Amino acid sequence: MSTTQTGRVAVIGLGSMGAGMAASLLRAGFSVAACDVNPDAVARFEAAGGRGAASPAQAAEGADVVVCVVVNAAQTEAVLFGSEGAAETMRPGAVFVSSATMDPAIARALAARLEETGRHYLDAPMSGGAARAAEGALTFLASGSAQAFAAARPALDAMAGRLYELGDAAGQGAAFKMINQLLAGVHIAAASEAMSFAAKQGLDLARVYEVITASAGNSWMFENRMPHVVAGDYSPKSAVDIFVKDLGIVQDMARAERYPVPVAAAALQMFLAASGAGMGRDDDASVARIYAQLSGATLPTKA
Amino acid sequence: MSTTQTGRVAVIGLGSMGAGMAASLLRAGFSVAACDVNPDAVARFEAAGGRGAASPAQAAEGADVVVCVVVNAAQTEAVLFGSEGAAETMRPGAVFVSSATMDPAIARALAARLEETGRHYLDAPMSGGAARAAEGALTFLASGSAQAFAAARPALDAMAGRLYELGDAAGQGAAFKMINQLLAGVHIAAASEAMSFAAKQGLDLARVYEVITASAGNSWMFENRMPHVVAGDYSPKSAVDIFVKDLGIVQDMARAERYPVPVAAAALQMFLAASGAGMGRDDDASVARIYAQLSGATLPTKA
Repeated sequence: MSTTQTGRVAVIGLGSMGAGMAASLLRAGFSVAACDVNPDAVARFEAAGGRGAASPAQAAEGADVVVCVVVNAAQTEAVLFGSEGAAETMRPGAVFVSSATMDPAIARALAARLEETGRHYLDAPMSGGAARAAEGALTFLASGSAQAFAAARPALDAMAGRLYELGDAAGQGAAFKMINQLLAGVHIAAASEAMSFAAKQGLDLARVYEVITASAGNSWMFENRMPHVVAGDYSPKSAVDIFVKDLGIVQDMARAERYPVPVAAAALQMFLAASGAGMGRDDDASVARIYAQLSGATLPTKA
Repeated sequence: MSTTQTGRVAVIGLGSMGAGMAASLLRAGFSVAACDVNPDAVARFEAAGGRGAASPAQAAEGADVVVCVVVNAAQTEAVLFGSEGAAETMRPGAVFVSSATMDPAIARALAARLEETGRHYLDAPMSGGAARAAEGALTFLASGSAQAFAAARPALDAMAGRLYELGDAAGQGAAFKMINQLLAGVHIAAASEAMSFAAKQGLDLARVYEVITASAGNSWMFENRMPHVVAGDYSPKSAVDIFVKDLGIVQDMARAERYPVPVAAAALQMFLAASGAGMGRDDDASVARIYAQLSGATLPTKA
């Protein structure tokens, strides 16, 4: 990252993650074009020195690397193969870096379809929030051909703090990511179930947080999310509907593979209840509020 | 702990935890009497300098502190109030330190019954394994009257690395412990569900372990238990039936309080399946083997 890059990169999607990734690429010296459905996001990107584009097709024109930072598989497919998709305008030999969380089977299908046209596909879901995106310190769980990795590496170096190389075909990165999402979703639901149960019993939740984070019942998600419950602050750091989506993908995968996931299935029901009760865009610790509603427990409210 | 203690302590139960706790008390200079249903355990304790006793009543005779290290509430009740129970022989003003994991309502009832006789009761479930018991480095989640804490403190200082003082009445320590057990049990089941799902998809489980322990899907239990699955080694560090018991207590408490625990309930079913399939005394990571059996996934076998 100490040398200035000379390649051209396109970023499709300038949300909180994509904007930070685009900034990291600009900082590394790449020529970056980007598009987003939100014109304000494109204007901010242009003010930071980027080239705004009107469509994925236009952003991808002449790019060596196209980084796709959208929400799901359907959007990724549209970015590649929609009426103004990037697949038509990427030059042969360029690489498409796909970061959305999706079913590995869909990642494999998208990769096969793109590779038929002579472009490469890197299956590269990521973890880390907006702050790490802006720092160029994301973690990528990547898989793809040697050519895909080679073509993507300069751009990944600018965006990643850690790069796991998890296999030589698309789908493997997605599979690792879904294993992580299964655990993360269950842990948020379990943390919520436990915290509201503690509240129902009249325990001091700040003390519960102190004890659990020092004990065998701790999880990364308990430690990260439960301060929101203790503070009564459900302003979204990560929304309920993200895990409605991701645990939904886990269910779809598991059903297709005839693999039972009773614990993840129970967790999903609680995210669905939170979303159905109108909290879909609130912080995912809102699952604790559903347990409180169902049981008459009293949770802390914001000071 | 640098001064030699002059008090008398009884330890009821010399299993892997109780034996280590008795050794820590001897090392601190206490006069320690102990009993166990297993005569070999008593003989080892005597060889280490302790005084063997034939019953809880005999061990508790003249003791300032009685530490009860048995498996559950029923055994604790028998230790106190059975035909050769300790309650009759403890001197008034002595304290009973109860370490078994149990329903807070039962802890409250046992405490009330003992306190009527002029003895004190400290509700003190613990965490940490046999190694930490032997080092005198256990964590206690304790609650009880000021008198109970004062009477127990010299002995606790010899056994504990960390002492949480969680309230002024029996039951609060138990309640904190059950919140921890809810989480710990769910996390073992979730880790098992995720690891066998990874195996079903053909992922390298050592790589899954590496990625998850560095990601937001991590938990204390994932990190501690899943090496057993990667190694195919189910020799018991902590047995399946411990969580059959503890998640069973969670269900009983939750049902009594009209509090729904769908995630813990799903996790319990998987521990029940593992126990029912004959793995009750195997390591609790055996839950992963049940998922593999149910789905045709292939897990690593011991080298």
